[in-house]
Amino acid sequence: MSPRRSVAESRQTRADILATGVRVASTEGLEGLTIGRLATALNMSKSGVLGHFGSKEDLQLAVVDAAADIFAREVADKARGTEPGLKKLTAMCAAWVSYLERRVFPGGCFFTAAAAEFDDRPGRVRDAIAGLATVWDRDLYRQIRTATQAGDLPQDTDADQLVFEVSGVILALNNALQLHRDTRAPARARRALGRLLGYPMLLFACFFRVSASAAHRL
Amino acid sequence: MSPRRSVAESRQTRADILATGVRVASTEGLEGLTIGRLATALNMSKSGVLGHFGSKEDLQLAVVDAAADIFAREVADKARGTEPGLKKLTAMCAAWVSYLERRVFPGGCFFTAAAAEFDDRPGRVRDAIAGLATVWDRDLYRQIRTATQAGDLPQDTDADQLVFEVSGVILALNNALQLHRDTRAPARARRALGRLLGYPMLLFACFFRVSASAAHRL
Repeated sequence: MSPRRSVAESRQTRADILATGVRVASTEGLEGLTIGRLATALNMSKSGVLGHFGSKEDLQLAVVDAAADIFAREVADKARGTEPGLKKLTAMCAAWVSYLERRVFPGGCFFTAAAAEFDDRPGRVRDAIAGLATVWDRDLYRQIRTATQAGDLPQDTDADQLVFEVSGVILALNNALQLHRDTRAPARARRALGRLLGYPMLLFACFFRVSASAAHRL
Repeated sequence: MSPRRSVAESRQTRADILATGVRVASTEGLEGLTIGRLATALNMSKSGVLGHFGSKEDLQLAVVDAAADIFAREVADKARGTEPGLKKLTAMCAAWVSYLERRVFPGGCFFTAAAAEFDDRPGRVRDAIAGLATVWDRDLYRQIRTATQAGDLPQDTDADQLVFEVSGVILALNNALQLHRDTRAPARARRALGRLLGYPMLLFACFFRVSASAAHRL
């Protein structure tokens, strides 16, 4: 086997391990992500998996990174072409709801589950999860500030408060879908978000649908 | 040892196992609740723990029940003496925020963590967690309906929607406290809940403080 082919195959194996790792962690938790569990799922030897990731923690961190790439592609990137401010904020929220509705991860929001699992376990995995959540919250905050400065949100809007409330709607949606399999929850989430972002009662569903379909096309 | 004393001691041992089980599950998850883990924490033999709970699942169910008793005492019971409708709903919400602020469980909301862990694991434990959440949501729903009928909430209030949004605020509070250790989050939650329950901007903090202190006295 040529060295080049060997490197390409090694990369592919690493990508396969991570894809399976994200799926396993999404439903069974990051702690369930043992080297042995993955080796069995991938029909590999334990040493074969360990060769790609030095330790269970390294594997968990690589899986969190892989999940973050999926979130970026499925949510953050969908709003990339939109004008900053209220339009971008709306597109971000629409893509966020759609990501949960479409069950991009089989276990619901990867990061909500990972946060619930690791919030009491100090270490690099917890730091990575908290760091990713902070980056996303800061992006929401920036769009809210831009929207407020442009007069598209009331001048007295408390951006931190609005980030908190928007996140709450998404957490409620994830909970309703995951625990209660409540198919009415996405409509409830869109209604709550529409109100928070100041859309008139009869228009928010329309705005959200347009944003969501625009997001899907991107 | 007299039979009566033996029964009393057995009950006490069971209560000790459950108290430790709730603490362990709250921070490490219900799946971390192995017979061996508990036996070590309590300095008991594995068979000693198994004698009280036939299986790991029985132990998990008993721990969920014990956690539900704590939630009832720390949240639901605090609002028991309050007049049904908006006052009771406010007292329930105030006690709910206070329960998270005081970290009644060391790992934050026991049921949020348990739901995130078990929502993809069909079985008796998942059913118990979903059932408890449904009972609590129904109680919130009833108070919202009563408040609406009394004219204390707008006539067009969608009770299911309001339950969804109130739950979202509590989930955001739990997330902010657990993942970000954000001490400003309880004030944000009270502000969001005050707005959802229709309290005037300058009065909700006062209403909540009165409700919370009344709840503490109960």
